[in-house]
Amino acid sequence: MDYNFSERLKCLKPSAIREILKSLDVPGVISFAAGNPAEKAFPSAEIAKISAKIFEETPIKALQYNITEGYFPLRAEVEKRQKKLHGIGRNFDATIIVSGGQQGLELAARAFCDTDDVILCENPSFIGALNAFRSVGAKVTGVRVEDDGIDVAELEQKLRTTPRVKLIYLIPTFQNPTGVTTSLEKRKKILELAGKYGVVIIEDNPYGELRFAGEYIPPIKSFDDEGRVIYVSSFSKILSPGLRVGTVTAHADIIPKMVVAKQGEDVHTNIFSQLVCHRFMTECDIDGHIARLRALYGEKCALMSECLRKEIPESAAAFKIPQGGLFIWGTLKNFPDEARLIKEATARRIAIVPGSAFMCDPERNATGTASFRLNYSTPSEEDLIAGCARLGEAIRALE
Amino acid sequence: MDYNFSERLKCLKPSAIREILKSLDVPGVISFAAGNPAEKAFPSAEIAKISAKIFEETPIKALQYNITEGYFPLRAEVEKRQKKLHGIGRNFDATIIVSGGQQGLELAARAFCDTDDVILCENPSFIGALNAFRSVGAKVTGVRVEDDGIDVAELEQKLRTTPRVKLIYLIPTFQNPTGVTTSLEKRKKILELAGKYGVVIIEDNPYGELRFAGEYIPPIKSFDDEGRVIYVSSFSKILSPGLRVGTVTAHADIIPKMVVAKQGEDVHTNIFSQLVCHRFMTECDIDGHIARLRALYGEKCALMSECLRKEIPESAAAFKIPQGGLFIWGTLKNFPDEARLIKEATARRIAIVPGSAFMCDPERNATGTASFRLNYSTPSEEDLIAGCARLGEAIRALE
Repeated sequence: MDYNFSERLKCLKPSAIREILKSLDVPGVISFAAGNPAEKAFPSAEIAKISAKIFEETPIKALQYNITEGYFPLRAEVEKRQKKLHGIGRNFDATIIVSGGQQGLELAARAFCDTDDVILCENPSFIGALNAFRSVGAKVTGVRVEDDGIDVAELEQKLRTTPRVKLIYLIPTFQNPTGVTTSLEKRKKILELAGKYGVVIIEDNPYGELRFAGEYIPPIKSFDDEGRVIYVSSFSKILSPGLRVGTVTAHADIIPKMVVAKQGEDVHTNIFSQLVCHRFMTECDIDGHIARLRALYGEKCALMSECLRKEIPESAAAFKIPQGGLFIWGTLKNFPDEARLIKEATARRIAIVPGSAFMCDPERNATGTASFRLNYSTPSEEDLIAGCARLGEAIRALE
Repeated sequence: MDYNFSERLKCLKPSAIREILKSLDVPGVISFAAGNPAEKAFPSAEIAKISAKIFEETPIKALQYNITEGYFPLRAEVEKRQKKLHGIGRNFDATIIVSGGQQGLELAARAFCDTDDVILCENPSFIGALNAFRSVGAKVTGVRVEDDGIDVAELEQKLRTTPRVKLIYLIPTFQNPTGVTTSLEKRKKILELAGKYGVVIIEDNPYGELRFAGEYIPPIKSFDDEGRVIYVSSFSKILSPGLRVGTVTAHADIIPKMVVAKQGEDVHTNIFSQLVCHRFMTECDIDGHIARLRALYGEKCALMSECLRKEIPESAAAFKIPQGGLFIWGTLKNFPDEARLIKEATARRIAIVPGSAFMCDPERNATGTASFRLNYSTPSEEDLIAGCARLGEAIRALE
């Protein structure tokens, strides 16, 4: 039969990355397409121990309904850690637990945006956020990303000239997909502009703790003295994405709006996972664990960088090497034909995500370049080496 | 600062029940307000064993990202069981895992409704569904519930005269909050009317397996030969609500719309919980477990019924005693003043949910009666006895 679907969802397509993930089971494919933590990154033994203790000591708590805001001791622990690491958390702020950072982004958009309201985003940006924003009926408008973060002149121009801008969405640290980190100066300037034009910032920081080079830069939220920043973080990249636990810290006037929307979405985040996160924070060495992750990803990034240098001539492509996070961003120099690159790569069984997937307006890739995102956290060392060789072949085949 | 929130969420209030749940920690309060499974209902020992096995045998699978549609072996097992129990599942159907039945309801509304589209609902109905529908901008319009289900004459009249009806939302078996089960004849008539007026049905069946009296009636979905019914079920009431695992079975043309909305909400349902549900279905005696739940809730329902008969004269209130599920619905006969009843009950530290909380239009309680929902699954036997005595006192105080 014919279904009369909502206009809001009619235009939405499934995430290119999620679709690529489904094809990963094809034998022989090496994937640089995912954003998954390395298998070695999971503290499986600790989680197994914690899990056993939870079911021994508090089985009912792990299985019964809980409140929408999330497990209180976990929220308190997250606030303590955010204060210590980043100076985040004023008296007016509150923290809730969400089902992955993804839900935090979507709830923030639902709290502020009606159909055709605008969210200014880094261009390119995280496809999961762009799709979530689109799915609530908001329009995403892109602002160019430079090597030190968003182009603040273009940001101000768009704030001045675009009607109905409600939110600015940013991943200031180790941005997905470009790996770029926004400078301290730009962070302060962006907050100032948001104030000047009366909009709220969503600061998404899933990778912030995964720094393996360069100097720490505090989140925008740490300068937020008036409640203008919704800070979204996550346990996905530091503990486990399968648990689906993220956090939102924002002004206590904003939080109830997000909570009421969350009630309708999933009542509360699964409580067993919240108990795991809480015990991991209080009973295990979370700092030591994250230090190991930093070392692991630093090595993997270095290995991929080295292989790319070896396999791909500087004249053919440029790569942004990040100071943390999970991604290297590549741009073709002489043959900017994205479709052909993906075809040649696929023929060589190397999966990469085309840059256009991350564009606010994928149909109109204004830059006229062909870019692509490479993930180094998921593949094994052997696959990093072999995959870069395949990518090199694919790029040489463009000539 | 002043925030410019979305119109869609501005009007939404937090669920009265969720808010009541928060106050449950007050010492001395007996709550008939929740919808929680009994503590005795959790197969904690089995889940502890399963959990240990998961972290021993497949730790990475339990912690890594998974696909939005859900863990394939669980989907297959759910389909097999639904086929066996209910004859649900045609060739055109597909099944996905969602983060509790709640998410299934919300995704169905998002797939079909734009702002001001209408969802016809039983009146009263499940407050979590009503709020989810409102939060996506849909209007909920109520149809009276009779002792054998929705008033089908009123349903047809509203289908004929209401513009923009997209969906009918029903809990045909052990309805929340009334406990009413829709008769076989009405189920078939409702499906026929949905076809005649070109609307889709959301059939919500969280309590279906909890029958302790009367005869089995197949779900509407089991008669659905054209893909008109979205069937939502859940592990919350048969295994654990804290795990947040529900299922949706619908035509394969509908499912991708819900999947794309789910990607934006939480990427996927937490995978550890999905593995628990799968192992519970395949490695434990799920039928034996559910048989024990049926006996447990049958006894608790009988105890509450007996206490209500003893404590509250027939002249003062009428009660609908259900054949399954978790709730008894009460209606005051002589002093239909809801606000006073809640005040008197609260003064005696007995928590109940006022009937107006479940109304499609809470401001205009057209029936002019005062009703309330009583839950017998959560309280202990002692609390059932003491709570009914307190409720009796509260009702006598109205005179």
